[in-house]
Amino acid sequence: MQMIAEVYGVMRDGLGMKPDEMADIFARWNDGPLKSYLIEITAKVLAAKDEKSGGPLVEVILDTAGQKGTGRWSAMEAQDLGVPATVIEAAVAARGLSAQRDQRLAAQKVFGAANMRVGDTLGDKQAALAALEHALLAGKIAAYAQGFAVMSRASEAWDWKLPLGVIAKIWRAGCIIRSVFLDDIAKAFAATGNVGNLMMVEPFTTTLKRTEGSLRRVVSAGVLHGIPMPALSSALAHFDLSRVGRSTANLIQGQRDFFGAHGFERTDSDGKGFHGPWSTAPV
Amino acid sequence: MQMIAEVYGVMRDGLGMKPDEMADIFARWNDGPLKSYLIEITAKVLAAKDEKSGGPLVEVILDTAGQKGTGRWSAMEAQDLGVPATVIEAAVAARGLSAQRDQRLAAQKVFGAANMRVGDTLGDKQAALAALEHALLAGKIAAYAQGFAVMSRASEAWDWKLPLGVIAKIWRAGCIIRSVFLDDIAKAFAATGNVGNLMMVEPFTTTLKRTEGSLRRVVSAGVLHGIPMPALSSALAHFDLSRVGRSTANLIQGQRDFFGAHGFERTDSDGKGFHGPWSTAPV
Repeated sequence: MQMIAEVYGVMRDGLGMKPDEMADIFARWNDGPLKSYLIEITAKVLAAKDEKSGGPLVEVILDTAGQKGTGRWSAMEAQDLGVPATVIEAAVAARGLSAQRDQRLAAQKVFGAANMRVGDTLGDKQAALAALEHALLAGKIAAYAQGFAVMSRASEAWDWKLPLGVIAKIWRAGCIIRSVFLDDIAKAFAATGNVGNLMMVEPFTTTLKRTEGSLRRVVSAGVLHGIPMPALSSALAHFDLSRVGRSTANLIQGQRDFFGAHGFERTDSDGKGFHGPWSTAPV
Repeated sequence: MQMIAEVYGVMRDGLGMKPDEMADIFARWNDGPLKSYLIEITAKVLAAKDEKSGGPLVEVILDTAGQKGTGRWSAMEAQDLGVPATVIEAAVAARGLSAQRDQRLAAQKVFGAANMRVGDTLGDKQAALAALEHALLAGKIAAYAQGFAVMSRASEAWDWKLPLGVIAKIWRAGCIIRSVFLDDIAKAFAATGNVGNLMMVEPFTTTLKRTEGSLRRVVSAGVLHGIPMPALSSALAHFDLSRVGRSTANLIQGQRDFFGAHGFERTDSDGKGFHGPWSTAPV
């Protein structure tokens, strides 16, 4: 939902689109790989008219979202299990900050409103909309990869023997995230048993390869124009962190050894607990 | 530390700089507004030579970081309190993924290595380094704003009466995050009592205004070139979510009312629990 809201933000604030026009786009996307209950109702919410004003209903709904607490609870469990759930965490934070409307308005007064119009940063309107569709698909794959990894780890940690493929099928049949996407997830689990990383199995790998460039361009456009991108940027960061062959954690291990004598491993030797030639006593 | 590692990533992989050269830059930054123990030791870690190979030590340290669990614990408490701590969450996730080195290498094989060279995306080298310094400063302000907001809320929730200005002074005197920055935080608390949002008090507001553009350009460059930006992009998203006058949560409230009859507020009336003209029964 947060990712859909971010894409809506690019359409509304970046491209200046009206609700009816956006409704048509989401309805069209619902005939493609994004087909899902949430995309379907997004089209309906955007198309709905307000009985009082006669205008688009979405324009008179206050921009402060509530939450039941399931996102927060999932995030805490994921932290406890040591599995990244940064996309859920970003979505929870975004809802929380949306509710602080007075503070947002005060901050906007101090910092000025962002100039959100993206111009031709994403190409012409058709190109921009294609990029948004692909960005949402790529972001969704990374987010589901996190979610299924959390469940997989929970299943191991607590010996739950969760049938993750079956869970995908159950969700497919009746839950707000029901989507054609879950069919592919169920198939992936049926084919390969426990899927460590959903991004690494087909058809998700091929789809990600095809769409990651769009996710980069959409996040970049949002980032440059002040359109908040918490979930999409977290999804992209998850992908980039997950596939970087050489990370920057060597520097962090150097820092940790410097201040806390935590020791590090070496690229050229086995073993742990190597130390640098620091003359300073550990803190 | 994660933000420093991301800036190091841009220097190393985006600009092709060598450890000695990076050490000089961090040493120089330690004479400016970033002056802090972590910047100081980053310079020293980058300058250190490996006794075995004679080359830069940082190059032979394995890129898999450990963690003691304080980040995870802080993130869980922040979630429990309902206060965003997305930068800490991003840093915890980055450490966790760094430790999964075999999976990263396998994913890089499947997706290909990112072409991280940023070319002149950030201007010439001097301009790029200036942008990195400013990006780190802006990111740090947003991250500290989250951290102090968590402590402030904890203090209220548990009636701890935490003297946050004094805490800043204590950290200043002996802790790995000791930095000149904490002097300004202590002063801000002394001047204004409880600071709701550190981004909204001086000198942080003025510094953020001056540096947010650099943060945008650095995150954008990283995002476009596959240089992981989890913490810096989360910090920027936090700033953008905190100062957007009109969020996109109206769409989310529409969705929540559609599928769950959660009700919404209106922009033109007081009261809660308004509903849209949905014909579908709630799920």
